[in-house]
Parts: sequence; C-alpha cells; structure tokens
Amino acid sequence: MSSIDFTKLDKTIHEKGRLSIMTLLASRRGRSFQDLKAALAMSDGNLISHLRSLESAGHLSASKSIEQRKTTYHLTPSGREAFTHYLEVLEQIIAATRA
Amino acid sequence: MSSIDFTKLDKTIHEKGRLSIMTLLASRRGRSFQDLKAALAMSDGNLISHLRSLESAGHLSASKSIEQRKTTYHLTPSGREAFTHYLEVLEQIIAATRA
Repeated sequence: MSSIDFTKLDKTIHEKGRLSIMTLLASRRGRSFQDLKAALAMSDGNLISHLRSLESAGHLSASKSIEQRKTTYHLTPSGREAFTHYLEVLEQIIAATRA
Repeated sequence: MSSIDFTKLDKTIHEKGRLSIMTLLASRRGRSFQDLKAALAMSDGNLISHLRSLESAGHLSASKSIEQRKTTYHLTPSGREAFTHYLEVLEQIIAATRA
C-alpha cells in the first residue's frame, strides 16, 4: 500500500467527466463529437470544455474530415501513455484492497 | 463500455486525497491519525479536512481509546460498501480499455 503513489493520478484525467472520455477513446481508435455525446449523456458545453482541457494537456487531438464534415477525437500517443500510467495506479488501488 | 456508469463514482471518494485514505483504511482494520499522516505525507489540516468529509458522508468513523490516548479511524460498513462499488467502476474502466 505505501508503495502506491497517488500523486501519479493525473489531475486532468482523474476528473469524472474526462475519465469517461479517456476510457471511451482508449477503447476505440477515434470518436466523433456526436458519438461521444451519445455515449456520455453530457451537454455540448460540458463535453466541449472537457475535450478542450484534454487537448490542452496534450492527451487528445481532433482531426477534421472535410468529406464527412465531422471532427474525430482520438488519444495522442502521449495521452495513451498518460492513461496507461493512470490505469496502473487504479490497478494498485484494487490490488491493495484485496491484499 | 457504454455499460460503465461513471455517475457511480462516488464524488467524496473520488477526490485523490480521500481516495488514498479510503484505500489505506480498506486494506487494514483501523489506523491512527499519525499512521495515516505518515503514510500519506499530508499536512494535518488537509488530512483533518478529508477525514471530516469522509465522516460526514458516513464512510468512516473514529474511535477514541482513553488508555492509548489516540483516535483510530476505520471504515464503516456502509463506507466499505460504497468503496466496493467505487472499485467496481475502476475495474470496469480497466476491463474496457483492455477489450
């Protein structure tokens, strides 16, 4: 237990709304805004605000398709790495409580 | 993934400092204030504030031993149950990202 470093819980990721977005994006290559909105039942404003925070942190990027006229969000390599480290702490928490 | 209910992430528990306290208390029967302080490297004020929030939520209780002159903190049955539910969501997040 004393080995769990809770400071490693990335603040940007740990917030509930952003954690749900990261989980969605980590489990699939990319998702459109409408896709995310439908899956998360978040208001446009809320979702936009969380996407911006994650983009500012370098965790996700948006690509625009002119043909399909939609923006797709996906994790950046560093976002994926940050999320992997985050998940490692979650695993340690679960392991500690089972010990 | 769509089956993960992120609203089940208890707000009181999810905060990083309180999550570390809950993890410590779940992995052992009870801990003194000094015990918690040493394990978590938190200031007295910070730790007291988090303990109060968790106590208000009914997640932990404190018992005072007159002989040993110290207060011991431990999870309440409902606190243990709330933490179990919280951990279930963490497990779902981990499972979703591995799928």
